[in-house]
Amino acid sequence: MNTKYADALKMILECLKECNTCFDACLKEDDVKMMAECIRLDRECADVCAFAAQAVTRNSPFTNKVLELCAEVCDRCAQACEKHEHDHCKRCAASCRQCAETCRQAVA
Amino acid sequence: MNTKYADALKMILECLKECNTCFDACLKEDDVKMMAECIRLDRECADVCAFAAQAVTRNSPFTNKVLELCAEVCDRCAQACEKHEHDHCKRCAASCRQCAETCRQAVA
Amino acid sequence: MNTKYADALKMILECLKECNTCFDACLKEDDVKMMAECIRLDRECADVCAFAAQAVTRNSPFTNKVLELCAEVCDRCAQACEKHEHDHCKRCAASCRQCAETCRQAVA
Amino acid sequence: MNTKYADALKMILECLKECNTCFDACLKEDDVKMMAECIRLDRECADVCAFAAQAVTRNSPFTNKVLELCAEVCDRCAQACEKHEHDHCKRCAASCRQCAETCRQAVA
Repeated sequence: MNTKYADALKMILECLKECNTCFDACLKEDDVKMMAECIRLDRECADVCAFAAQAVTRNSPFTNKVLELCAEVCDRCAQACEKHEHDHCKRCAASCRQCAETCRQAVA
Repeated sequence: MNTKYADALKMILECLKECNTCFDACLKEDDVKMMAECIRLDRECADVCAFAAQAVTRNSPFTNKVLELCAEVCDRCAQACEKHEHDHCKRCAASCRQCAETCRQAVA
Repeated sequence: MNTKYADALKMILECLKECNTCFDACLKEDDVKMMAECIRLDRECADVCAFAAQAVTRNSPFTNKVLELCAEVCDRCAQACEKHEHDHCKRCAASCRQCAETCRQAVA
Repeated sequence: MNTKYADALKMILECLKECNTCFDACLKEDDVKMMAECIRLDRECADVCAFAAQAVTRNSPFTNKVLELCAEVCDRCAQACEKHEHDHCKRCAASCRQCAETCRQAVA
């Protein structure tokens, strides 16, 4: 893979983990109703991160486009998680923000 | 792809659609808490169906193993959906049961 | 899922099948070297089709963006396959072209 | 996620990277024909690693089954890569062997 994507890959894998951890934890919360948007976006974000990790490592000709999509999904997931006080939401939001920024730096 | 998997592929794609439709609908229900197990298993099942569709069509050497795993996840998702009266849950459960059976026939 | 994506979903699943069939067949050709670009793009295209099928069916907020990406990858895969006379390449190229067009119509 | 899977996750992500790096490099080799089995199994292995990383991090009820499948695919990919002297094949084979072992330890 192109080494200019190394930081992005690292953050993408971290973000994948935090999004899925948040997805799992949200489903166990008492007020699942309140977490519905979070659950939906955690899955969206984990899935695009997994897709991006594959694209980056196989040297896909579409890597930049995938990273741009990934950054956009990360931002939306962060917005949803930032509305909650749960530790898993805060961690997820921070990871999403950092991932979005690192993806955009890699593409720039 | 091997034509002996044609029926399984058809059911897998149908099941993928029903599981994701149920996932989306569950997140919009009033009592999301009650649907938490359904939401979790809908994602599990949609994801293994997408993975199985790829394995079957690319003639993977691991197709039989993947179809066995798919059948097992389908059964578990059906069990969760059968506990609810929502139309999307009933449709999803029926599709999962049929997919599990068709996958096992293809492997046998 | 939104019924306006029904045609796109149908073509995406057909394209997924043709791309993976072509991937498998290319790897069995005598002159694999000549097929290298085809093999690479068949995987790219099958993977984005699988990703798009998931997005469409789970009613993803990012469906339009994913379909635009899918159409772009389809076009590139069609270009690679159209250089060859193999039946699997011709079938794949035709399916990619139709999928790209149907995705763009759904988004328009 | 369950911390007993932490080592497995780390190796799975490493293996995903090496398999896709090998896939990309094999497609650029002069004798692609000789690498056909490697290319096929690199994709199989990268895809099951991506699937396993998702399963582990979302605390899937099927994690152990997925890790067993992952270990089996890793072994087969290692066998294919060990037949070649290319540096990317050697690195990939070593990563696959270690990933298979770590997945089996996590399940045991």
